[in-house]
Amino acid sequence: MRQSRLFGKTLREDPKDEVAANARLLERGGFVYKSMAGVYEYLPLGLRVLDRINAIIREEMNAIGGQEVFFAALQPKDRWEKSGRWKVLGEEVMYQFKDHSGRELGLASTHEEVAAEAAARSIYSYKDLPLFIYQIQVKFRDELRAKSGLMRGREFFMKDLYSFHADAADLERFYWKSADRAYRKIFTRCGLDAYLTEASGGTFTKEFTHEYQVLSGAGEDLIFYCANPACRYAQNREIATLQDGGRCPKCDDGKITMGKSIEVGNIFRLGTRYAEAMGLFYADKDGKKHPVVMGSYGIGPGRVMATVVETHRDERGIMWPDALAPYAAHLIALGADDSRARKEAEKIYAQMEKKGIAVLYDDRADKTAGERFADADLIGLPWRVVVSEKTMEKKGVEIKRRGDAKSRIVSAADVFKRIS
Amino acid sequence: MRQSRLFGKTLREDPKDEVAANARLLERGGFVYKSMAGVYEYLPLGLRVLDRINAIIREEMNAIGGQEVFFAALQPKDRWEKSGRWKVLGEEVMYQFKDHSGRELGLASTHEEVAAEAAARSIYSYKDLPLFIYQIQVKFRDELRAKSGLMRGREFFMKDLYSFHADAADLERFYWKSADRAYRKIFTRCGLDAYLTEASGGTFTKEFTHEYQVLSGAGEDLIFYCANPACRYAQNREIATLQDGGRCPKCDDGKITMGKSIEVGNIFRLGTRYAEAMGLFYADKDGKKHPVVMGSYGIGPGRVMATVVETHRDERGIMWPDALAPYAAHLIALGADDSRARKEAEKIYAQMEKKGIAVLYDDRADKTAGERFADADLIGLPWRVVVSEKTMEKKGVEIKRRGDAKSRIVSAADVFKRIS
Repeated sequence: MRQSRLFGKTLREDPKDEVAANARLLERGGFVYKSMAGVYEYLPLGLRVLDRINAIIREEMNAIGGQEVFFAALQPKDRWEKSGRWKVLGEEVMYQFKDHSGRELGLASTHEEVAAEAAARSIYSYKDLPLFIYQIQVKFRDELRAKSGLMRGREFFMKDLYSFHADAADLERFYWKSADRAYRKIFTRCGLDAYLTEASGGTFTKEFTHEYQVLSGAGEDLIFYCANPACRYAQNREIATLQDGGRCPKCDDGKITMGKSIEVGNIFRLGTRYAEAMGLFYADKDGKKHPVVMGSYGIGPGRVMATVVETHRDERGIMWPDALAPYAAHLIALGADDSRARKEAEKIYAQMEKKGIAVLYDDRADKTAGERFADADLIGLPWRVVVSEKTMEKKGVEIKRRGDAKSRIVSAADVFKRIS
Repeated sequence: MRQSRLFGKTLREDPKDEVAANARLLERGGFVYKSMAGVYEYLPLGLRVLDRINAIIREEMNAIGGQEVFFAALQPKDRWEKSGRWKVLGEEVMYQFKDHSGRELGLASTHEEVAAEAAARSIYSYKDLPLFIYQIQVKFRDELRAKSGLMRGREFFMKDLYSFHADAADLERFYWKSADRAYRKIFTRCGLDAYLTEASGGTFTKEFTHEYQVLSGAGEDLIFYCANPACRYAQNREIATLQDGGRCPKCDDGKITMGKSIEVGNIFRLGTRYAEAMGLFYADKDGKKHPVVMGSYGIGPGRVMATVVETHRDERGIMWPDALAPYAAHLIALGADDSRARKEAEKIYAQMEKKGIAVLYDDRADKTAGERFADADLIGLPWRVVVSEKTMEKKGVEIKRRGDAKSRIVSAADVFKRIS
């Protein structure tokens, strides 16, 4: 992609009304911008990061048997009255309104009721269980205070998986499989070090749940966690029995530390509450009916993106992990339009595109070398490749990893090999 | 995919409250189901079709220089007051409501205002033009009568492209490029024979616009079109000067015919209305400011899916074009679980998966041969592959194209070659 044509320009100054580093850097870098408080527009760079996060999530969801669906946001009141959540969600976070005919509608802030109702069309017998469905879709929440940039929004992407089981034991097996296989892998692949943290279930369940928490000063949560890397036992302060500075009761070794953290995912045992409310029953081998046991499992892809920015940055900008970077390389040509260096850069750009290397090519004629380097650091692609009169004299190009202090001169062929 | 595990079951009976063939077949086949009037949930089969349509759209949008973005649905009132559409859209189709703090919000039924505002952050000079951005995203419209199944919904997918130009002549060039290159290709690739039809612009523009209309008895529109395949001149009845049975004034040859049709896309010349309202100006070479000239270009992917069903079906079910089919082949094993045929089918299934052939494998133990064949015709995958005691005696499998009357016995190796 030629940067001169890229939709979304870098900004020199921080946006005035953003406090959170993730929003400041993502807006300045041209990834997103604020549409209104708690609502962001995704520009091409931001959407490319989001697509990469979603692709990782899809792979891991499919690997544990998840089937992708897409549920609507518009919700009829009666569905949520069945579960008894119309009133409580309406008071808390659900946008509710009337259409032109006077019918009461809501915007889904979550989809347990819909998932249970959908499953009731496909689950009749124990042979239909277990079942795992997920979606990546936009949720709406009327948050009183939308803050922390992309971390707490009024409209935001959510991956929600729903699992359906014949009994609590089967839910338990899948609950830990989703935790150990899918969730851990997703966060690791996204470059996040997440703590599996015991927490309360909010309006979803009265049972104990688990959150995935990433330590960060930008977090809205507080967790107590065991510093022993072999243990990593953690509790959200809301329900904590651990004590800051105390010894971990789990491994009987590590020291408990308190830290601010960002919740990037959560998993819930829902039990039979939604199944019973929505009429989701199955017949066992003897034909006897039972309510289906459910679990739900959330990840906010936009929040993952924001958390990666919070935890992968320096004073100059973002430092994307390779797996999430919108482009692998930032190719920069120094020199006038008709210079030797510019012609060489054009050649290298064409070769990279041909080889399938995702490259952002800074071909902007009206920027100084300093502005280009500053923008490259701000946008934060893993590799910076510079072509200049100086590098051409040395018969090569300058290559540098974002975050490394030193660059080196290598041949163009060597660049292709390293980056691809 | 094993059909015994597939989320979304086929129904024997038509859903009671659906009149439109697209909704009846898509619901019976387990592709979608109605959440409420005008709102559908996408099950795995339906989402796979939708993903294939979206992939075609993305390819053709990118080929004409489109850059993908994602704009939010939640809208602040003041943005739409700038363009003067808050009131008129609110009276017609826009869901509008207050949040808990009393702030007035709307759900975007279209995104011209957002696109113009976004572009104003990235367009300063004539050098930044032209620019093309698009998104595939959910729109909301408070339709008084949501009917025709997936063709007219209250919540539906939309691909909307916005183009930005220095002058009307440049818009004109791109307008026809989008029509001749992108739009024609998209519909052809989706198996639709669409007429480029002159039409009025509704609330978007006072200028003349063009719709893409597919002839179908299920259509809500009426068009007059030239039957000469080299001409294909067409007008929507709303603005028509053509006369049914008359001679085409364009080619002076073909006979004008009237027909019901489905609008699957539209392209609008917006002029400078939205640019002026949203403060989108550029400086020309002399530094003089001008409003940017805009165009907008829509396609409803869900409506494309519904239109394909309306135009590709017989009395037994859907007949998907290869490019959109959720799976290429429907593999059916006849015989008990431990039969020779079943074991052979398992082998072929594994080989197909290994070869990357998208296959739906009917391994359901509790269905008769008749039920399986009926479901295969209903779901409508391009190839049906049957393994039975009979085909094994002939040392092969039975293969049939959906829509062909006759099947033939071929070797498994031959099946892989034909389908991949």
